[in-house]
Amino acid sequence: GHRPFLIAGPCVIESEQLAMDTAGRIAEIAKAIGMPYVFKSSFDKANRTSITSFRGPGLEKGLAVLARVKQQIGVPVLTDVHSEEQATEAGRVVDILQIPAFLCRQTDLLIAAAKTGKVVNIKKGQFLSPPEMGNAVKKVEDSGNRRIVLTERGSSFGYNNLVVDMRSFPIMRRFGYPVVFDATHSVQLPGGGGTKSSGQREFVETLACAAAGAGCDGFFMEVHPDPDSALSDGPNMVPLHTLHSLLERVLRIWDAAAK
Amino acid sequence: GHRPFLIAGPCVIESEQLAMDTAGRIAEIAKAIGMPYVFKSSFDKANRTSITSFRGPGLEKGLAVLARVKQQIGVPVLTDVHSEEQATEAGRVVDILQIPAFLCRQTDLLIAAAKTGKVVNIKKGQFLSPPEMGNAVKKVEDSGNRRIVLTERGSSFGYNNLVVDMRSFPIMRRFGYPVVFDATHSVQLPGGGGTKSSGQREFVETLACAAAGAGCDGFFMEVHPDPDSALSDGPNMVPLHTLHSLLERVLRIWDAAAK
Amino acid sequence: GHRPFLIAGPCVIESEQLAMDTAGRIAEIAKAIGMPYVFKSSFDKANRTSITSFRGPGLEKGLAVLARVKQQIGVPVLTDVHSEEQATEAGRVVDILQIPAFLCRQTDLLIAAAKTGKVVNIKKGQFLSPPEMGNAVKKVEDSGNRRIVLTERGSSFGYNNLVVDMRSFPIMRRFGYPVVFDATHSVQLPGGGGTKSSGQREFVETLACAAAGAGCDGFFMEVHPDPDSALSDGPNMVPLHTLHSLLERVLRIWDAAAK
Amino acid sequence: GHRPFLIAGPCVIESEQLAMDTAGRIAEIAKAIGMPYVFKSSFDKANRTSITSFRGPGLEKGLAVLARVKQQIGVPVLTDVHSEEQATEAGRVVDILQIPAFLCRQTDLLIAAAKTGKVVNIKKGQFLSPPEMGNAVKKVEDSGNRRIVLTERGSSFGYNNLVVDMRSFPIMRRFGYPVVFDATHSVQLPGGGGTKSSGQREFVETLACAAAGAGCDGFFMEVHPDPDSALSDGPNMVPLHTLHSLLERVLRIWDAAAK
Repeated sequence: GHRPFLIAGPCVIESEQLAMDTAGRIAEIAKAIGMPYVFKSSFDKANRTSITSFRGPGLEKGLAVLARVKQQIGVPVLTDVHSEEQATEAGRVVDILQIPAFLCRQTDLLIAAAKTGKVVNIKKGQFLSPPEMGNAVKKVEDSGNRRIVLTERGSSFGYNNLVVDMRSFPIMRRFGYPVVFDATHSVQLPGGGGTKSSGQREFVETLACAAAGAGCDGFFMEVHPDPDSALSDGPNMVPLHTLHSLLERVLRIWDAAAK
Repeated sequence: GHRPFLIAGPCVIESEQLAMDTAGRIAEIAKAIGMPYVFKSSFDKANRTSITSFRGPGLEKGLAVLARVKQQIGVPVLTDVHSEEQATEAGRVVDILQIPAFLCRQTDLLIAAAKTGKVVNIKKGQFLSPPEMGNAVKKVEDSGNRRIVLTERGSSFGYNNLVVDMRSFPIMRRFGYPVVFDATHSVQLPGGGGTKSSGQREFVETLACAAAGAGCDGFFMEVHPDPDSALSDGPNMVPLHTLHSLLERVLRIWDAAAK
Repeated sequence: GHRPFLIAGPCVIESEQLAMDTAGRIAEIAKAIGMPYVFKSSFDKANRTSITSFRGPGLEKGLAVLARVKQQIGVPVLTDVHSEEQATEAGRVVDILQIPAFLCRQTDLLIAAAKTGKVVNIKKGQFLSPPEMGNAVKKVEDSGNRRIVLTERGSSFGYNNLVVDMRSFPIMRRFGYPVVFDATHSVQLPGGGGTKSSGQREFVETLACAAAGAGCDGFFMEVHPDPDSALSDGPNMVPLHTLHSLLERVLRIWDAAAK
Repeated sequence: GHRPFLIAGPCVIESEQLAMDTAGRIAEIAKAIGMPYVFKSSFDKANRTSITSFRGPGLEKGLAVLARVKQQIGVPVLTDVHSEEQATEAGRVVDILQIPAFLCRQTDLLIAAAKTGKVVNIKKGQFLSPPEMGNAVKKVEDSGNRRIVLTERGSSFGYNNLVVDMRSFPIMRRFGYPVVFDATHSVQLPGGGGTKSSGQREFVETLACAAAGAGCDGFFMEVHPDPDSALSDGPNMVPLHTLHSLLERVLRIWDAAAK
């Protein structure tokens, strides 16, 4: 039957091996539980809290890894882009171009992503109300692309904290495109760790289950075989060995809500 | 099997007839779907936005109505109290004394409610983080009462808006008591209507389903046969004729989450 | 010339000696710089975070101390009330009855305070937008009392933090009554200390100077000879020995803004 | 004596004539009251709410206008940049490169701006706590540039609203660089006008006076001869004919605070 899709992978492409292994393992899990799966990983973490943080392999090497994942694992791939040039380049390789939340109002980036003809996943800015995403949608539509996905990843709630407003799912679904819940960035504590963001991995499941109840079309999760040794976003990533049971529970709730 | 309970009824006791009819009808619905049911209605709306708003029948008449509901419909009853005297008086009639969110830090009120020996339902203040509710819990426990319920009803989110932080359910459950989700006050827009609060009834279902997914122990809903003609909180109350299907969906999700 | 007034004193009446000494010393400072002065202290801290916190001498003893301060120091006195009975009793002694922020929507308390004929100082709830205070004002006016003061003390900003929105001064002044800035409660970090509120005393001066620039009619500050040994609200109280120079700077700014 | 500086001009370069006229008139006012003055205008509004909004003359024509303002009016000029290329290009003409608030975490943009050797003005993201700006500062410093300015422009406060936390001035000043208050963007209501941001021009003066009291080093204001006919940000810009008296009042307060 109808199932929500899964966008998942390590935050950043730490190595080809890690990307391949993680993609392969998640693809098996997704297949076992019947979720369409898209591999996600970043070639560049362009807005790390600190200038000394690890950023990734860069555009060229990163796209090469994504191409190999796509070919060898046989799954569509997604990556995030931060400039028009990156959008154009990445659009030649990946299936979904992702617009980071901080950049969701940058008109030229949205247009460049739209013009690749690939699916554009726009993350809702932490500073934006759900109805305002209609303006981002229109920027892509008016550039001739109606392959759009929207992603909820939490709203600024005082300092160093985010809150997920579950009303955003029905509001954003009114635009006519799939709405994804990003369960791992939603538990970030921005700047909560001084020179890095910390996170509350322990709430990923609660929020994913809540979003499944509220009604969304897909789930986004950063997943790592060993989050505590990850080069980016360790505190909020899901450990790979817990993914299967987490998704089973989320799906059970999603099915119950969709009936 | 194990089921969440339902606290529901018209916001305020508009008349004995309305209370009785609504209680009877909700009791039937709750029985049909297997939810333990507690009738809720207020004898006095002590913090209405405007001084000219309808406040209810008052303590004496209100308690008389609640006593009759309890006797004739055969369900436990809950009401909210705003002073030590009201707590003591109401404690002679009702099964659950509710502490309003604005008053959840008033030590004497908590102690007076605790000393009745009845169940004390403490609503989380809109200005409070979930862990802070541990202090309210302790005030009741230290007064010799361990029959406690906690209720989430949204947090202040800028002006004239509330947001429900689904992380509050696992956090408050750590205190060892049932945690309820108040689905109708959570969609209030405080002061959004000038001299009254407005509300977004259309999001009650989304939030209740999300809370069911997140995991709570009970649901609180203000219900009215005709919310648009209600004397208080009309914009956020659930119409009685939609309650059955709403609860069925919520329960389906709750069951899936509890498995 | 025209000057803003000062409401100041120790958070709670720890002893008659402390109240008298602090009132006397602040009165001298206020006289030296030409600010009308009202002594503030609480007889009961009814909403302390923890049930084991010190609460004060109680109504009877507290009012006796306030009466002696009034008589011997020769200044008007203010205290906060939490029930209709307290309002009526305190109204026989004090010049200004203060409605705590959490209770600013409790209609009966506002009416009882209004009916004493004394000045009613309503603190704006942390959960309230500035225009909503018009409803509190109307509750007092409709009870026949037009001696009203409104106090800004910060708004909920995520968890365990408050933010002062300086737009609230011009908005609340439109109601036609003096607006006070509470500089010490505005730097509280509610629940920030686990079983007590912590505070950021270091920002009292910044916020008081900002409010002086924005335009307010009075300043409220909790002051203690030795805040670190105070029995309540130590982390945010102003040390008595710094008050003179703090007020001089605030007044200089206030004068510049009022020109 | 020591005076705060002024960054001001029309939001966007609507025409060379408008830029020149406005710069000339503001320069006269600034000279009359003794404030060092920097002309500000954007060549491209890259993150307008709607794709159909006016965006400006573009990089080349815009820089040409800025160069003429600089030469003919004899004042330093500032513009905002959205990509590394723009930073490099604009760095050849302007004196101050401004990093937009949404982009304040984009590492490459900060580095590119830093490497021009020009002053870098980093606007604090609406989603950022004041201490987190230390990470942005470090990104510029580590790129070999210590000519930094930081700008407060409000924090997300629920949906469609911003609040200015005056504590941010002393916190950000600790980094050792001048801190500017952006008085006109701080009164924006993001998305408050559906397909455009609305604003509350009536609070510009209140907030600027508050910031003057709190202590800042400069003021940023978008100014237009006729805001209601402006092509961008009309609802929050300061009408040119009111600028002189507004600045006089702000300066009076600033002087009083600085004494």
